[in-house]
Amino acid sequence: MLKHRTKFRVIYGDTDSMGVAYYANYLRWFEIGRTELFRFLGLPYTEIEKKGYFLPVSETHCKFKTFARYDDVMTIETSHDETIKAGLKFNYLIFKDDENDIFANGYTRHAFLDSTGKLVRTPKFIREFIAEKIGER
Amino acid sequence: MLKHRTKFRVIYGDTDSMGVAYYANYLRWFEIGRTELFRFLGLPYTEIEKKGYFLPVSETHCKFKTFARYDDVMTIETSHDETIKAGLKFNYLIFKDDENDIFANGYTRHAFLDSTGKLVRTPKFIREFIAEKIGER
Amino acid sequence: MLKHRTKFRVIYGDTDSMGVAYYANYLRWFEIGRTELFRFLGLPYTEIEKKGYFLPVSETHCKFKTFARYDDVMTIETSHDETIKAGLKFNYLIFKDDENDIFANGYTRHAFLDSTGKLVRTPKFIREFIAEKIGER
Amino acid sequence: MLKHRTKFRVIYGDTDSMGVAYYANYLRWFEIGRTELFRFLGLPYTEIEKKGYFLPVSETHCKFKTFARYDDVMTIETSHDETIKAGLKFNYLIFKDDENDIFANGYTRHAFLDSTGKLVRTPKFIREFIAEKIGER
Repeated sequence: MLKHRTKFRVIYGDTDSMGVAYYANYLRWFEIGRTELFRFLGLPYTEIEKKGYFLPVSETHCKFKTFARYDDVMTIETSHDETIKAGLKFNYLIFKDDENDIFANGYTRHAFLDSTGKLVRTPKFIREFIAEKIGER
Repeated sequence: MLKHRTKFRVIYGDTDSMGVAYYANYLRWFEIGRTELFRFLGLPYTEIEKKGYFLPVSETHCKFKTFARYDDVMTIETSHDETIKAGLKFNYLIFKDDENDIFANGYTRHAFLDSTGKLVRTPKFIREFIAEKIGER
Repeated sequence: MLKHRTKFRVIYGDTDSMGVAYYANYLRWFEIGRTELFRFLGLPYTEIEKKGYFLPVSETHCKFKTFARYDDVMTIETSHDETIKAGLKFNYLIFKDDENDIFANGYTRHAFLDSTGKLVRTPKFIREFIAEKIGER
Repeated sequence: MLKHRTKFRVIYGDTDSMGVAYYANYLRWFEIGRTELFRFLGLPYTEIEKKGYFLPVSETHCKFKTFARYDDVMTIETSHDETIKAGLKFNYLIFKDDENDIFANGYTRHAFLDSTGKLVRTPKFIREFIAEKIGER
């Protein structure tokens, strides 16, 4: 499985007056997770856009388990879901110190658009790139 | 069904460099939707907190259908899901001019916490309030 | 003086764990203020972009007087600063119930860019539009 | 001068449909800068709150020089302004690769509040801490 972990810290601007991280920010953190997975694999998302493709989110889901608070250092583990053939799907796990102390988990699904905004099949270079990376494991 | 519609406008700060509304902002708009539903029904969320309860989001889901763009006026229709007994669930539909032109739909689920942060059953005054409001329809 | 007032409500997502509105959000509200001033005057910002100009913020300043809290209804009064000839400047006053209860005041300065991103003088149609609107007062 | 540099990366959620980083986000980055300066000096902001003090922003100013774009890695250099005796002031410089390629500069001023929300003089432990740190240089 293609998987990567990255860390970040909750800032004041991420929290709300309940004293915890505001729920919409988890989707920002999902973005950080998948961006860093792409970069780690050797295909930064900026390269995908340079080739004329966009990868907007078509669906997202998130379960919130434990509250994250100001200044918490979080790990986001992003993994590529190989079972999905149409577009891409990423699964996310956000935790504090270890996987037993989970803040949230969720997923995003993505469709490919070409530069005119038209929905297209997953581009060949992406399918080949993923197949190659999975083969390397 | 307890249901309410409210409108808002997409600002520059809501968009991203793909030229469309950034996906995390839909969760902010879901918040606006459920807040205004509570207020419309006669129980502002601030009243719930004054009684010593918090209603954090335990789960959210959103499907993105059409891109929203800068300065679009959107309607969010929030409805209370009566089939859920543990906590609360709200369903959302975000559309532009009519329900045939849908930007997104989704839901949030909420658990009740007391003032010490402990998970509690849906408070009696909430259950009675909802039963009464549903009875009025 | 070209001036306009608009209202908005502080949501949970605008607050932070100090229990008050997070300071960066005031710049979002400044945006709402100047956008609605343009619209009120009859020249929506989208029209300016359609004519091939962009109006990014080159400078901003804000003083925070009183804390805004969740669910507060705020008024933002935006006024065009006629004394500035290079680009545009807007002054903002954000208050709760009347001008004696001020949350914040500040300003933004803006430069004009053409569609290639080059800095240009304030376009003639803008200068004429402002002169005409000021003349009407 | 007490000074510290930290790096971060612009995400999609930070950009707007002009294709550049939205101006309000610079205030989030100022927060990151001063938080990491405090931590670097050995007094994390969480410690200040544990001692019963809050340090809200009373004023901010920012000049925007060059546009930051998606995936740019930015350095924020935060320095403590020793000339200010009432409260604290921090100066910020945000740049890409070197200080000749500046995105923005600005400052924030901060007042001290005690745990009841009352405005107080800069606490003795803060004044001593800063004097000691300046002396070490």
